[in-house]
Amino acid sequence: MENSSKQWRFEGNKRLNSASAISVRGVLDVVIGNLSTDDLRPTIPLGNGDPSQFACFRTSTTAEEAIVDAVHSAKYNGYAPTVGVLSARRAIANYLNRDLPYKLSADDIYVTSGCLQAIEVALAAINRPGANILLPRPGFTFYESRAAYEHLQVRHFDLLPARGWEVDVDAIEALADDNTVAIVIINPGNPCGSVSSYDHLKMVAETARKIGILVIADEVYSHLTFGSTPFVPMGIFGSIVPVLSLGSISKRWVVPGWRLGWLVTSDPNGILQKSGIVESITGFLNISTDPATFIQGAIPQILENTKDDFFSKVIATLKEAADKCFDGIREVPCLTCPKKPEGSMFVMVKLNVSLLEDISDDLDFCMKLAKEESVIIVPAGMAFGMKNWLRVTFACEISALEDGLRRIKAFHQRHVRKQ
Amino acid sequence: MENSSKQWRFEGNKRLNSASAISVRGVLDVVIGNLSTDDLRPTIPLGNGDPSQFACFRTSTTAEEAIVDAVHSAKYNGYAPTVGVLSARRAIANYLNRDLPYKLSADDIYVTSGCLQAIEVALAAINRPGANILLPRPGFTFYESRAAYEHLQVRHFDLLPARGWEVDVDAIEALADDNTVAIVIINPGNPCGSVSSYDHLKMVAETARKIGILVIADEVYSHLTFGSTPFVPMGIFGSIVPVLSLGSISKRWVVPGWRLGWLVTSDPNGILQKSGIVESITGFLNISTDPATFIQGAIPQILENTKDDFFSKVIATLKEAADKCFDGIREVPCLTCPKKPEGSMFVMVKLNVSLLEDISDDLDFCMKLAKEESVIIVPAGMAFGMKNWLRVTFACEISALEDGLRRIKAFHQRHVRKQ
Repeated sequence: MENSSKQWRFEGNKRLNSASAISVRGVLDVVIGNLSTDDLRPTIPLGNGDPSQFACFRTSTTAEEAIVDAVHSAKYNGYAPTVGVLSARRAIANYLNRDLPYKLSADDIYVTSGCLQAIEVALAAINRPGANILLPRPGFTFYESRAAYEHLQVRHFDLLPARGWEVDVDAIEALADDNTVAIVIINPGNPCGSVSSYDHLKMVAETARKIGILVIADEVYSHLTFGSTPFVPMGIFGSIVPVLSLGSISKRWVVPGWRLGWLVTSDPNGILQKSGIVESITGFLNISTDPATFIQGAIPQILENTKDDFFSKVIATLKEAADKCFDGIREVPCLTCPKKPEGSMFVMVKLNVSLLEDISDDLDFCMKLAKEESVIIVPAGMAFGMKNWLRVTFACEISALEDGLRRIKAFHQRHVRKQ
Repeated sequence: MENSSKQWRFEGNKRLNSASAISVRGVLDVVIGNLSTDDLRPTIPLGNGDPSQFACFRTSTTAEEAIVDAVHSAKYNGYAPTVGVLSARRAIANYLNRDLPYKLSADDIYVTSGCLQAIEVALAAINRPGANILLPRPGFTFYESRAAYEHLQVRHFDLLPARGWEVDVDAIEALADDNTVAIVIINPGNPCGSVSSYDHLKMVAETARKIGILVIADEVYSHLTFGSTPFVPMGIFGSIVPVLSLGSISKRWVVPGWRLGWLVTSDPNGILQKSGIVESITGFLNISTDPATFIQGAIPQILENTKDDFFSKVIATLKEAADKCFDGIREVPCLTCPKKPEGSMFVMVKLNVSLLEDISDDLDFCMKLAKEESVIIVPAGMAFGMKNWLRVTFACEISALEDGLRRIKAFHQRHVRKQ
């Protein structure tokens, strides 16, 4: 049969394609596509926040054995309840309760397929016709993609580099209107590597309360802090404003591929229940896939038995890497870090193209850096709407990071504008 | 602070809630909620298609050890590519190629978080403003839920009990219009336990081609057949009509909780590529969560090394259970099976309420059966729009099934209309 002349009635989903176009994954693919096959040196991946490939970031034996035990038990081969395995929900509640002034119960916990699915759930559950949401710029573009897919409108507020990437709280009230339903706070910060103080988070909570919106607190990098500001969970302010807290084992246990996260209603006053958000959370989970049941089954062992040694080692490595990264970038005249990273795995770097001879912008910088030096970093103009900024991750083997910084320096020297 | 008087601007997502209301999970929750705590006998679960809890359906050691090896390798802790781990895609292509007249490549395979996410992907990728899709009645209600969530309109065609649950092919052309984009075929059938013949599937493919729509072939129960009709993958007819084939390891390996499935473009003429469907598949996966990377890493071992012994044992158990179930139901005058099940894990049973004294319909039957006999079956009126039908799964331990059938018989005798 001849198909070329046949008329078919189906076609791709254009809205979906445009929602998906906004992604760090997509931007990174462009940069990686410019690597030169002639360069025999190893590629230095300072783009993605996934250090699991490096031996120094291998997850704890406790976590690995918890999975093995769960598989061998054969108790977790079947479907899980919509909201998650009860023992996992209890363990997550206990884990989070260590840092809260009130007690979460298992009923507050929804186990998700990584923090990504927790974001999917949160944005779907709050969506209603005409609604809009406040997102940080720079932020994590998965929010923009899912919002576009959900027909949820987006308004951006700035994180202020001159104030250590704090939220521009004054701007938030002006930005909100009657259709604004939520604000997203990512702390510790991706892509800025900043950690918000107790007082600053409280101010954000009070502002959200004043407007009448809930807070989506993305805490996927919780406890990954190594500066002077300790991590404070937004849920602490749950009695001021209802909070949907999102988290996972992906970052602290360095297992992003295990796809185990959670969405938590940090809301001691039960406002999310009364407003119907809780019903919609369950509704979305009812019609979505789940995290693997045996990984849920392993969660109590993972959360309860992982030794402090493991966490300390990860933090020490990240701190050393952040310091080296910050110092290394300071030696490159065309690059500036407004703030030394204190958390997460990233730092935002300002690029001064006027000091360079033949580099037009951040994308051009990253494309040529990939081609000439096999170093991958994210151009923040394309990825985050921050023209002539770069996002660099320091979460890699120290020797690889040092090698990458040397190559960036050599790249600068080769392209510097002659006086 | 007083929250009770505070006006909040957010509320639940009503469209999401109504999409989620259509679910077997929801209907089963209602029935299970009617179990009596006074009954000390074990509950007989003939509702869900998840036999993994029974020792006779424990998955193969090969599969368990493949997971353990993947975890211990520490090679699969990081994020997977959007479309899946390459070795898994290759292994799935090879696995499916055993039954196809042409060769799938790894590029045709998209690894998903169970077959559920494959359904999410398929419905999202084909959606466009005004589009509608043809779904079987009875079918798998997750399609209805996701379609409602996606604003994709649904038109139902009947499966005909008098013709062994074959598709009413004549009705399909009358049902379709210019906005129809796809038809869903579930084979082996859930909830009917039927297996479609080569000739019948070919006729469906030719009808879809004539209309100009693609086929979504849900083959999550592939190879679980035990009657005279062998399983034929719809992809065999990929040169007649483009097929999106959906599958998983959930059923054949009895590990639905592992959440590892696939969506496959069975389309040797590349029509799905040209029409933009392939771009939208990747687009959806770009903005969705993934199956756990180490489970993907285990797939080559699972698909290549599982011994035939394991499959034979599962099939033999299912066949024995299907026979016992069919024979047992024949002994209950108010119940009729139009067709002996030949595949999947289910059979559809017609309920004749006129023979019973105090049972008003299928829901009433299931509620009272749960309360009085601690036997769970699915009322098909509420679950599938098939009033006074029941869906019974026979995929459980034989002794439990026999016990369940005895209790159903006793229930009938207690409620039979006196002459």
